Amino acid sequence: MRCERDTLGEVEIATDDAFGSQTARAVQNFQISSKRLSDYPDMVAALATVKLAAAKANASVGALSKEKAQQIALSAEEIIGGKHHQHFPIDMMQGGAGTSSNMNCNEVIANVSLKRMGHAYGDYAHLHPNDDVNRSQSTNDVYPTAIRIALLNGSASLLKEYGLLRDSLRAKSEEFKSITKVGRTQLQDAVPMTVGDEFGAFASTLSDNIERVRQTRETLREVNLGGTAIGNGINAPKGYRERVIQILSETTGYDFYSAENLFGATYDQGALVLFSSALKSVAVKLSKISSDLRLLASGPRAGIGELQLPAVQAGSSIMPGKVNPVIPEVVNQVCYAVIGNDLTVTLAAEAGELQLNAMEPVLLLRLMDSINLLENAMRTLRERCVVGIKVDTERCDALFKNSLILATELAVHVGYDRASAIAYHAKKEGLGLIEAIRASPDIPPEVLSALTGQRTDRVA
Amino acid sequence: MRCERDTLGEVEIATDDAFGSQTARAVQNFQISSKRLSDYPDMVAALATVKLAAAKANASVGALSKEKAQQIALSAEEIIGGKHHQHFPIDMMQGGAGTSSNMNCNEVIANVSLKRMGHAYGDYAHLHPNDDVNRSQSTNDVYPTAIRIALLNGSASLLKEYGLLRDSLRAKSEEFKSITKVGRTQLQDAVPMTVGDEFGAFASTLSDNIERVRQTRETLREVNLGGTAIGNGINAPKGYRERVIQILSETTGYDFYSAENLFGATYDQGALVLFSSALKSVAVKLSKISSDLRLLASGPRAGIGELQLPAVQAGSSIMPGKVNPVIPEVVNQVCYAVIGNDLTVTLAAEAGELQLNAMEPVLLLRLMDSINLLENAMRTLRERCVVGIKVDTERCDALFKNSLILATELAVHVGYDRASAIAYHAKKEGLGLIEAIRASPDIPPEVLSALTGQRTDRVA
Amino acid sequence: MRCERDTLGEVEIATDDAFGSQTARAVQNFQISSKRLSDYPDMVAALATVKLAAAKANASVGALSKEKAQQIALSAEEIIGGKHHQHFPIDMMQGGAGTSSNMNCNEVIANVSLKRMGHAYGDYAHLHPNDDVNRSQSTNDVYPTAIRIALLNGSASLLKEYGLLRDSLRAKSEEFKSITKVGRTQLQDAVPMTVGDEFGAFASTLSDNIERVRQTRETLREVNLGGTAIGNGINAPKGYRERVIQILSETTGYDFYSAENLFGATYDQGALVLFSSALKSVAVKLSKISSDLRLLASGPRAGIGELQLPAVQAGSSIMPGKVNPVIPEVVNQVCYAVIGNDLTVTLAAEAGELQLNAMEPVLLLRLMDSINLLENAMRTLRERCVVGIKVDTERCDALFKNSLILATELAVHVGYDRASAIAYHAKKEGLGLIEAIRASPDIPPEVLSALTGQRTDRVA
Amino acid sequence: MRCERDTLGEVEIATDDAFGSQTARAVQNFQISSKRLSDYPDMVAALATVKLAAAKANASVGALSKEKAQQIALSAEEIIGGKHHQHFPIDMMQGGAGTSSNMNCNEVIANVSLKRMGHAYGDYAHLHPNDDVNRSQSTNDVYPTAIRIALLNGSASLLKEYGLLRDSLRAKSEEFKSITKVGRTQLQDAVPMTVGDEFGAFASTLSDNIERVRQTRETLREVNLGGTAIGNGINAPKGYRERVIQILSETTGYDFYSAENLFGATYDQGALVLFSSALKSVAVKLSKISSDLRLLASGPRAGIGELQLPAVQAGSSIMPGKVNPVIPEVVNQVCYAVIGNDLTVTLAAEAGELQLNAMEPVLLLRLMDSINLLENAMRTLRERCVVGIKVDTERCDALFKNSLILATELAVHVGYDRASAIAYHAKKEGLGLIEAIRASPDIPPEVLSALTGQRTDRVA
Repeated sequence: MRCERDTLGEVEIATDDAFGSQTARAVQNFQISSKRLSDYPDMVAALATVKLAAAKANASVGALSKEKAQQIALSAEEIIGGKHHQHFPIDMMQGGAGTSSNMNCNEVIANVSLKRMGHAYGDYAHLHPNDDVNRSQSTNDVYPTAIRIALLNGSASLLKEYGLLRDSLRAKSEEFKSITKVGRTQLQDAVPMTVGDEFGAFASTLSDNIERVRQTRETLREVNLGGTAIGNGINAPKGYRERVIQILSETTGYDFYSAENLFGATYDQGALVLFSSALKSVAVKLSKISSDLRLLASGPRAGIGELQLPAVQAGSSIMPGKVNPVIPEVVNQVCYAVIGNDLTVTLAAEAGELQLNAMEPVLLLRLMDSINLLENAMRTLRERCVVGIKVDTERCDALFKNSLILATELAVHVGYDRASAIAYHAKKEGLGLIEAIRASPDIPPEVLSALTGQRTDRVA
Repeated sequence: MRCERDTLGEVEIATDDAFGSQTARAVQNFQISSKRLSDYPDMVAALATVKLAAAKANASVGALSKEKAQQIALSAEEIIGGKHHQHFPIDMMQGGAGTSSNMNCNEVIANVSLKRMGHAYGDYAHLHPNDDVNRSQSTNDVYPTAIRIALLNGSASLLKEYGLLRDSLRAKSEEFKSITKVGRTQLQDAVPMTVGDEFGAFASTLSDNIERVRQTRETLREVNLGGTAIGNGINAPKGYRERVIQILSETTGYDFYSAENLFGATYDQGALVLFSSALKSVAVKLSKISSDLRLLASGPRAGIGELQLPAVQAGSSIMPGKVNPVIPEVVNQVCYAVIGNDLTVTLAAEAGELQLNAMEPVLLLRLMDSINLLENAMRTLRERCVVGIKVDTERCDALFKNSLILATELAVHVGYDRASAIAYHAKKEGLGLIEAIRASPDIPPEVLSALTGQRTDRVA
Repeated sequence: MRCERDTLGEVEIATDDAFGSQTARAVQNFQISSKRLSDYPDMVAALATVKLAAAKANASVGALSKEKAQQIALSAEEIIGGKHHQHFPIDMMQGGAGTSSNMNCNEVIANVSLKRMGHAYGDYAHLHPNDDVNRSQSTNDVYPTAIRIALLNGSASLLKEYGLLRDSLRAKSEEFKSITKVGRTQLQDAVPMTVGDEFGAFASTLSDNIERVRQTRETLREVNLGGTAIGNGINAPKGYRERVIQILSETTGYDFYSAENLFGATYDQGALVLFSSALKSVAVKLSKISSDLRLLASGPRAGIGELQLPAVQAGSSIMPGKVNPVIPEVVNQVCYAVIGNDLTVTLAAEAGELQLNAMEPVLLLRLMDSINLLENAMRTLRERCVVGIKVDTERCDALFKNSLILATELAVHVGYDRASAIAYHAKKEGLGLIEAIRASPDIPPEVLSALTGQRTDRVA
Repeated sequence: MRCERDTLGEVEIATDDAFGSQTARAVQNFQISSKRLSDYPDMVAALATVKLAAAKANASVGALSKEKAQQIALSAEEIIGGKHHQHFPIDMMQGGAGTSSNMNCNEVIANVSLKRMGHAYGDYAHLHPNDDVNRSQSTNDVYPTAIRIALLNGSASLLKEYGLLRDSLRAKSEEFKSITKVGRTQLQDAVPMTVGDEFGAFASTLSDNIERVRQTRETLREVNLGGTAIGNGINAPKGYRERVIQILSETTGYDFYSAENLFGATYDQGALVLFSSALKSVAVKLSKISSDLRLLASGPRAGIGELQLPAVQAGSSIMPGKVNPVIPEVVNQVCYAVIGNDLTVTLAAEAGELQLNAMEPVLLLRLMDSINLLENAMRTLRERCVVGIKVDTERCDALFKNSLILATELAVHVGYDRASAIAYHAKKEGLGLIEAIRASPDIPPEVLSALTGQRTDRVA
């Protein structure tokens, strides 16, 4: 064990641990969620990325010596490359608006560098976690910026999966485009459509949404880096802000830009609220599609039974031969979790006081959870369900023929009231609609031919 | 117009308005929700009820002259009886933790009394809204107590409707008890049951819940009356607290009791949070039942079609003969509104600071909304849907016979694996299960008889 | 009373009521929320606007006679102009995905026209609610389109108020730009800033958000008109769709466009979910600002007391001289209501099944509620609070001088560790920071002068 | 690798894995949340506990041979004792209403027993996962029962921590009982109280709530075990149900009882909704207390500063000497997470269809999360914050003396209007209230003495 001192006194740290006193205290203080920073390599890397950019910017404006900057940059690059993550043991659910996570990164970079420079862990006279690694920075601009980097990275793969899911639904739409079926509104037989129309609608509502998510994601490129503690840029030298954002953009490939008002940008979580809302809108759409798939595949004999979802596992411990729509079911559940997460994000964002929102850690945690859950759910839905969906064409056809849904087209010819009367009569007597029309001497034969003619099914 | 003065200056009030300066200011300040206090007669009466009890208690402990107390009591009784409500014009959505509503009541009682006593409106030297009508009280104990009275009254009729709905479902359970049908889990055909079982389950889950709502409602009888501003009972004379609660109980018929810790009781909204949660649990149950009714009545030809809901209106402006499950649909929507209201209640309760929760008005508003919506929805569901539900027995029977759901019973005889194989085979080949068993030489004939024998459907 | 027949039988209607059987049935069926369609003139007018456009488009493609179209258009214009609204008595909370509201409008237009044409109410042979007024339409494209028109109109004035509120905060930022104060993070004294910075941050976070709300609002211009029942355009003649959207755009001044996939657009509520999310994000921001105003004005003696909010009413029924921040309080409550409404919108959107979302009425109701509440709250906050806010400059100054917040600048000169030690020492001993520095012989005098020099307060 | 067959075909399983084909398929199907069943030892043990009870009950009613039952029981006991947990690799977020978890347990028990009996893994002819281990059971009664056992266990330690937190607040209330301070309503100085009153109120609102949580927890003892697939008890022999619940009660020490209506109990999640609501009510209370602690400790110089929270870590990476209220901050965040989880529970509960709620896995996951988070947060709040809280008595006293809060008591003597005028005057002129009274010749000297006399602070 070695010993570090800070203003609160001494702290014992294991000799091999590259973190320092603030991390050690935070580990003791926060034993809350069992999720550690090291479980989120994207966030660890994002923090190191900010440190890398800051060190270079500091050197470039003369706020840090070339040598120190180089050491910091080397260590940050190692972390970005996946090394040293075991030294980020802090609970993701933490007080202090992310100070512990920021200091964890400062301390690890300092110590890793010190070691490389031939000094002992904790010998901060040669490179200081606050004065050097955190130079021109505050948790209050580092942490939100790192959150944005992590979310941008996480959501990139989310969007990719979203697009693939949309494509798989579109392919099914094409595959099923000529199978006519009963369209239903309010769970009641309505008017004709094709199975392709149904999947095409799924794909189309996702397409729209992907665009919206993408737009919302773009707003994450606005950062408050350089604003330091509350947005006034205290302790950040002239020129640093422009430089650090430029370097960050070059390093990550994202075109970051500075918020216009850094005071507002320091406390405001509006961009994360809207990003979470966008994820929620994904959940609402996915949940609806999953529910529809389950409904259309209900049966196999006593339900709608138009679709056959791939059988991916036995459905019951007691009921032999049962196969359940387990994939859409798990997607529904993911969607409920994401909607709940969005509420947590809303609450945390609303709770910010004065110059800072101290609740950022839970914002990060739940947004990451939503992103991961949605990405996994979309991949699973595509791979294990959508691509293998089959249509029971005979069932679609039988339901169509037995239905009364040509009454709407009939109304064009005979008026709403007369068509209603015929449809009611058919329903009551258990007749087919065509049968009922045939039994109505007032309906001219050409109407009958119009209704029974060849259909695609026709879209205006 | 007449003119009243308060510490902020002069206010113009129409000659006929029985309220005073504080009400007049509040009307100007809060033009928010378009819902006035007078739209909630239960709440107006509840406020007056507290004033009545306070006047009597004050007189009884010597804090108010007999004559003043009598005048206040008379006016309060008139308000409880439905008079003067037009003088409660304040927006229900108001700042100030209900002070405006409390003062509105104080002022109307003062002025109505003054008139009766032969004085002019506003001549408060003879009877003062604060010093006399509000004697020994603060908004901070009056308003929460009035909220509880209003909720107790509102929820009494809610519970009655809840019970009637449960009874109507139970009656249906009895009516349909011998109709066998396919039971479904995860929307897949599962095992046999009766339609009566299905409705019995609905009724039973409501029965349990009614008891829970009732228990939660009981906690509303705990009040902080006598605690005045923050719970220390400042300005309330000795003996007043016990007396006012006793009189309040006698007047209302509810057995109110004092909170043990009045400081906590002044700010804490825990009872309302749990009461709102109970209403939410009602919503969750009602929504599930409504969704099931819509699903079981889906069709008429291309859905499940086991139930026939009463046709209460034409279903479509374009599709003749269509009838939709509009009653369960409106119930679903009410449930979503109630769940949203519960969130608002949660947020408002969480936002209380230090010795008071200033957000009580929105708590009241949304709780009242939930109670009214649920009561109306339950009455509507019962009267316009449940009592008229019919079963399509032939459909139930046909679906049952065509299904493979006897496989579970088969497994008892031949094991899960063999039963699975037979069920899969039947599904794949489009056979009935009995047919598939008959084609399996390894299944002894007595198994077949066991499966095809007379059924009720049997419950263990 | 007169009598109308439909497929369900006869209905009695008062002689003077311009609505017909479907409206009459719906009034009986839905006694739920006490909010009538006529309470929402924007929605009544929006429905009539669609009817106007449809009539003209129908005439232009030959689907309706010139005369009928003209009569429909005349009646629709009267309704848009505010006439006949008393004939829209239907509960806003209704089953049937809005069919009742659509039919109410069809029936009123038919009857008002019939009367003008010299026929009796109900004499639909001359002009039919379904066959003529609803020609080429379905509730399923009319109602969502009308919702969008109503929301576009409602949110226009919301955005205007939002801008005015932002401007009022910006003006205060300018007014207070040279008053230095303690900046606070996590409720702890942090670093220097000006009161102008604080208000500037408020204004800036609103500015960003106004843009986002505006963008989201733009998506409401996408409509499914012409898709009729489920999106296949059944019963709508060729050319109608393009024409009706064009006329609708001309009539309203909004540049509507057709959804690409009408099947998806018929059921999907994604645009409303995101619009509601945008309103929620407004609520999150407003709530934060309101909480900050209350906190900064806390006191008058035992709180922070930097701000003085206008006294708009006496604060207490029992505590003389107390003035409360009632305006921000009511804004907080509005925000909680809006967040709750957003949940309801989410739930309703998620519940759509197959080709239609039957839960649209509650979506409309809660979105309208959110818009109205927010607009009123923003106006009230501006007029009755923000414009009258004053700063207690002496208090700001005294708090600043007594604080230790120059420690951050000190650290630039002496390092984080040494600055920490001095700040801790000052805190413990009750010294001012400058005093503590003076007592530290190791700190060179030029550091002291740097810290105590003239300040604006400087932003990098 | 070994190979198992089921109706879907063959599955490869590693030789050492004690689970079978259904688990293997589920692992492939559900790669969603990264949380495995083995991460929840309470749930693994709960499943095994049900299996233990079922085996014994089956033997006792003759549905299973003594030997098989004994083997199953032995294996179940080993699992309860903590062995074999590595064989429960299934994702907690799973479709299928828990079938995968139930089958995982069935398979592990079968294989562990087979090995003990001298057979190979997968040699199910000697002991079958479905026919023997799952005898008389269905996932649909096993899984919900196991959930209840796990929640009962988890919430026992939660309640213990809740009680300890309450006790620590109560101890502080006693410690600070004689320190007079300014009571505040709506963040404005109100009337006198003691610091002890403030902590006493915290403790008291928790006490009430602990009782409610306990009551709600009691309802978890109602189980549907014996109802099997949908509540009709299919495949469960006579006498089994009573027996299995009795054995379960003996084994666990909880007094379980059978639901009256097993159909309802199979699908209904009402008890979990209310339990989650109770957890939410805990969160609302904890969050309020945490916010108050942060507010009362705001400063150290430019805030309220009445309380001093223990300094547990340095507060800032940039601001030396800053100490933040990190412990209450993390508690606030936990509360937002729990409120979000409650929404997920609500959504999942509402989504149940017909005879089963397939969304149970996410219910379990989020309830477990809430329990763990709350327990950790309460322990942390107590140990690292509450027990070390100190009061700045001088600050309390100075704020009290400088305030105008004796105006309320003054009103008793001189009336509300006169007291208001004096208080306004004092506020405007910057006087103390006593000073302002002294300058008011109309106030008799005995009033002054009454206000300035010795105080405790007095509670009625």
